[in-house]
Amino acid sequence: MEDKTQEMERIQELLDNKHYTALIAELAEMNAVDVAEILDKENAANAVILFRMLPKDLAAEVFALLSSEQQSAFISSITDKELGPILDELAFDDIVDLVEEMPANAVRKILANSGEEERKLINQFLKYPPDSAGSLMTIEYVSLKKNMTVKQALDYIRETGLKKETIYTCYVTDANRVLEGIVSLKELVLAPEQELIENIFESECIYVNTHDDQESVVAVFKKYAFLALPVVDAEKRLIGIITVDDVMDVMEQEATEDFQIMAAMQPSEDAYLNTGVFTLAKHRIGWLMLLMVSETFTGRIIEHYTELLARLTILTSFIPMLMDTGGNSGSQSSTLVIRGLATGEIQLRDWAKVLWKELRIAIMVGSLLGLTIFVKSYFLDRKPLLISASVGLTLIVTVTIAKLTGGLLPILAKKLHMDPAIMAGPLITTIVDAVSLIVYFRIAGLLLF
Amino acid sequence: MEDKTQEMERIQELLDNKHYTALIAELAEMNAVDVAEILDKENAANAVILFRMLPKDLAAEVFALLSSEQQSAFISSITDKELGPILDELAFDDIVDLVEEMPANAVRKILANSGEEERKLINQFLKYPPDSAGSLMTIEYVSLKKNMTVKQALDYIRETGLKKETIYTCYVTDANRVLEGIVSLKELVLAPEQELIENIFESECIYVNTHDDQESVVAVFKKYAFLALPVVDAEKRLIGIITVDDVMDVMEQEATEDFQIMAAMQPSEDAYLNTGVFTLAKHRIGWLMLLMVSETFTGRIIEHYTELLARLTILTSFIPMLMDTGGNSGSQSSTLVIRGLATGEIQLRDWAKVLWKELRIAIMVGSLLGLTIFVKSYFLDRKPLLISASVGLTLIVTVTIAKLTGGLLPILAKKLHMDPAIMAGPLITTIVDAVSLIVYFRIAGLLLF
Repeated sequence: MEDKTQEMERIQELLDNKHYTALIAELAEMNAVDVAEILDKENAANAVILFRMLPKDLAAEVFALLSSEQQSAFISSITDKELGPILDELAFDDIVDLVEEMPANAVRKILANSGEEERKLINQFLKYPPDSAGSLMTIEYVSLKKNMTVKQALDYIRETGLKKETIYTCYVTDANRVLEGIVSLKELVLAPEQELIENIFESECIYVNTHDDQESVVAVFKKYAFLALPVVDAEKRLIGIITVDDVMDVMEQEATEDFQIMAAMQPSEDAYLNTGVFTLAKHRIGWLMLLMVSETFTGRIIEHYTELLARLTILTSFIPMLMDTGGNSGSQSSTLVIRGLATGEIQLRDWAKVLWKELRIAIMVGSLLGLTIFVKSYFLDRKPLLISASVGLTLIVTVTIAKLTGGLLPILAKKLHMDPAIMAGPLITTIVDAVSLIVYFRIAGLLLF
Repeated sequence: MEDKTQEMERIQELLDNKHYTALIAELAEMNAVDVAEILDKENAANAVILFRMLPKDLAAEVFALLSSEQQSAFISSITDKELGPILDELAFDDIVDLVEEMPANAVRKILANSGEEERKLINQFLKYPPDSAGSLMTIEYVSLKKNMTVKQALDYIRETGLKKETIYTCYVTDANRVLEGIVSLKELVLAPEQELIENIFESECIYVNTHDDQESVVAVFKKYAFLALPVVDAEKRLIGIITVDDVMDVMEQEATEDFQIMAAMQPSEDAYLNTGVFTLAKHRIGWLMLLMVSETFTGRIIEHYTELLARLTILTSFIPMLMDTGGNSGSQSSTLVIRGLATGEIQLRDWAKVLWKELRIAIMVGSLLGLTIFVKSYFLDRKPLLISASVGLTLIVTVTIAKLTGGLLPILAKKLHMDPAIMAGPLITTIVDAVSLIVYFRIAGLLLF
């Protein structure tokens, strides 16, 4: 990839030396993403100077990419006369995001600079549930009629296309805005000019409903490799479209949330470095507290066997190894199943297949681990035979229980309409800890006394 | 979303009743993804029957979507005369994937049915490293010249566009195939017919090198929201393009690999349900064995303090809680940092910021947990004061060390060019276990004797 650092240094130099004319020319040629990155690194005063130098359309693109703190700062430091044209250029879904995230005074300023029709639409969009298809969509799509010719369609796209989020998929609707099908720009460009849309459009197209969950939207994009997807209401009227770039953000966000839940945290969309320590601490303390208190029950099990441990303190030294190996074995299984459920590869009906697979893996892996620890303990570390045997046997049983639990609990969670991700490592570990200790003390008690 | 089950049932019915004419008409109207799903569910004989009913272009699309087992079965059950046209319709990157995955006899059949030029290209493509930009790209792009008019460009696209992976981004190259810039179909459609490409194309475009890692390709797509990205060689000659749908697959696969590594498994691209138990067991045993043997050192620490534990067996009962809470605290931190590094939000230079953040969080969270366990132990469970105090203090120290370790190790791994994901929960837990026990016994020793 080409080097962006030089470009940034050049901009900085031009700014420091107040070469504004050269700066304006240079900025106009740049990609909005890179300009936003530069503004992000500058101090507030310089950022506003640079922002004012941008051509209108680039300014709007850059504005949409800024952090909400910076957007809010910009809105309060520029005049209504400057704000108006930026809002005009801004894509509708970016305006809605803006209104959702800005403080009240900035929102007032935005709404005051929008037309009445737009204000109504913004309010309607704010009503969609946060993780729904409706909250992801934009209204800037190309809509065509069946009786248009290809030439009429292309002329219409030429007239209106600049303001559309995408022109590569166009939507065919009837007089009541009901979605009838789609036609791609590729098909339009490749077709003869006098052909009717009716003859080339795809009537069996896939769509989602405004209230569908964003996870199902992601699943459709992954399955069919679309660039855009139409969103309809209960009467199949076309309301908006979702484009692939927004779906990529959702994919990443959903994976991040799963990582967080699986590490026993409250999920959050906020970036780590930009989140305050209080908020981060708050997201972590709940599960830590719950799991800690649960673990005190494991302590009770140990207390119950105090007498056994007092007679044979050597048994204590194996506790960390048994607990951790059990926990790790369970985490492996639960992670694969949770991920399989998330990508759609594993379905609820596969529960028996999963259990049977995990059982066979557990017996293989558990036996190998149990045998290894027995050999190491008895032959290398010269521990008593029966103690080494107890540890080895416990490991086989624990690994088996851990893998079955790890394989089954995420599916059970999904069945109960909970997020399978909460059945990850930390919870499995807590359950397996108690189980492994009971198994250990029982086996040791049987073999040794 | 509309219901696909009915469609599938209708196909099944037509097939069972041998209504082949209706079946052919029905299949021709369907989406390739859905046809592939049906073939996947049918037995081998029926699948071949259905496949032979598909129109050529749909057949090629469907073929590219089948599992490698099915592709291999199809290749051996259809004649060369049937295979030829399918290979002609297949996208070039799909042919390369096919040759990579097929058994030797199928590969011979494929190469025998390709032209000489194509055979040479296939061999060249097979040489790119597996996770490189080169291995992701396709050669079916539209390449234009600067001195073409918009009309000439559109005519050229009309002539050649059907066989291209995308026509929405076109690439401007010079006589030596060196990449000069890009122009989108949107710009072409919106521009006047007599305008020269020279005047509307974007000369400062972003590209990757054939040998760049696929992770950096994903990063570029996420940052700039592209639909396609050009891939060049060391002389900046255009070799191919990568499209957004292939990048979505890579994104998902990279996240899955991170989940697997973080749960102490060898990463694998294979789907869980389709992987044999031996392979799955092999992917899991390595880390389990390593972590198990490491944990025997924790056992040594306990042996070292046998005397202390024999005098006060009650101390043993807190071991599981201390170990697990420490491990969970460390996993939370390492997960957030690993994910931040993967999405590019956290950079190596941020290590001090991360440590400072984690230190403050650790003191907050650790104190609250320590205080809670002290109150529960002393007031509720009526344990001795000094033992309750030892446990509470140990927790504060352990959580702090765990969070600092969890925050720092992934960054250190990245610095050493290792995958940060291996510094996840299981490894942190093993380290923190040893640390927490030493801290525990030291504090208890100090307070109690």
